[in-house]
Amino acid sequence: MGAIDDLVAEFARLPGIGRKTAQRLTFYLLQQPPERSARLAESLRTVAERVRPCPECGNPTEADRCEVCSDPRRDATLLCVVEEPATVLAMDRAGYRGRYLVLGGRLSPLEGIGPDDLRIDLLMNRVAEGTVREVVLATNPSIEGEATATYVQQLLVGREVRVSRLARGLPVGGDLEYLDGATLSHAFDARREVG
Amino acid sequence: MGAIDDLVAEFARLPGIGRKTAQRLTFYLLQQPPERSARLAESLRTVAERVRPCPECGNPTEADRCEVCSDPRRDATLLCVVEEPATVLAMDRAGYRGRYLVLGGRLSPLEGIGPDDLRIDLLMNRVAEGTVREVVLATNPSIEGEATATYVQQLLVGREVRVSRLARGLPVGGDLEYLDGATLSHAFDARREVG
Repeated sequence: MGAIDDLVAEFARLPGIGRKTAQRLTFYLLQQPPERSARLAESLRTVAERVRPCPECGNPTEADRCEVCSDPRRDATLLCVVEEPATVLAMDRAGYRGRYLVLGGRLSPLEGIGPDDLRIDLLMNRVAEGTVREVVLATNPSIEGEATATYVQQLLVGREVRVSRLARGLPVGGDLEYLDGATLSHAFDARREVG
Repeated sequence: MGAIDDLVAEFARLPGIGRKTAQRLTFYLLQQPPERSARLAESLRTVAERVRPCPECGNPTEADRCEVCSDPRRDATLLCVVEEPATVLAMDRAGYRGRYLVLGGRLSPLEGIGPDDLRIDLLMNRVAEGTVREVVLATNPSIEGEATATYVQQLLVGREVRVSRLARGLPVGGDLEYLDGATLSHAFDARREVG
């Protein structure tokens, strides 16, 4: 049963999917018409082949520039710095309508993730262009997220931009992705200038 | 973001995977090298293309006959009737070493699943061949599983086979797939002849 075991193993490598769930998903698909698995496979392949980070902000996109960067109604003077693409959706849900910079992670000495592994250069280039007036640091309220925000904040000292952080009030140790829009919206409105 | 939304939607169609989890899986894959998604896609495609029900028992297999049916050490006089492939693994874990007949579901008037939707003909053919001495009914201990077992039991009245069911002691409303091997093994040993 090589193919079946392979699929169970691949499912089980996804985060939050244990061996039992992986087996359940596999058997579920085995009882569906084969087109069902083929369609999921096709979606995965399309994402693997076509989706790349936007060269301007790092957000995943199929196009040359992502939807946010190519939307002229977005406020280009506001740049929200986030760790991951999921936070872009969360901020948008909360009503934010500026631009983004997706770092692609957070500083983590323990995992060997340093500044060179994040889109710090892209951020500095964006700021150097002169359009951005305010950089809003919206990293996750975890120790590593806070350290990342502090690091970026220090890099921006002396640049002609305001730097702000989402207001305290975020639950420490939480994940922005799971915050409700109202809380996130409130934290955004109450952001304070720093540095 | 068509491709990304498509993948989220496909993940969300899997059982037990809500929209939030689907999104999380998608963003996780977007942060991995594309080969990662491609490999999962490949596993799915292989399963979709190569895996078919075994013509002798209905268990999914890549080969002409499944591993169980092609294993001469298996006791061909014992035929265990199960609803789904997952139960085959559970019975094997419990130490069962006979053959199987995977019905492919259970009778469910509410969902419009009747005898013609299950592998009843295959079961009757297997019994008609004369090798099987005992049919062990191992449908799930749910109302529909019990009804299915009773239906099969009645079909087998007058045939030259013993018919047994797994012993009472199974938790009513449960799912065989999640039973521990010891309980299932005990229920098998204490199976009683019926019909």
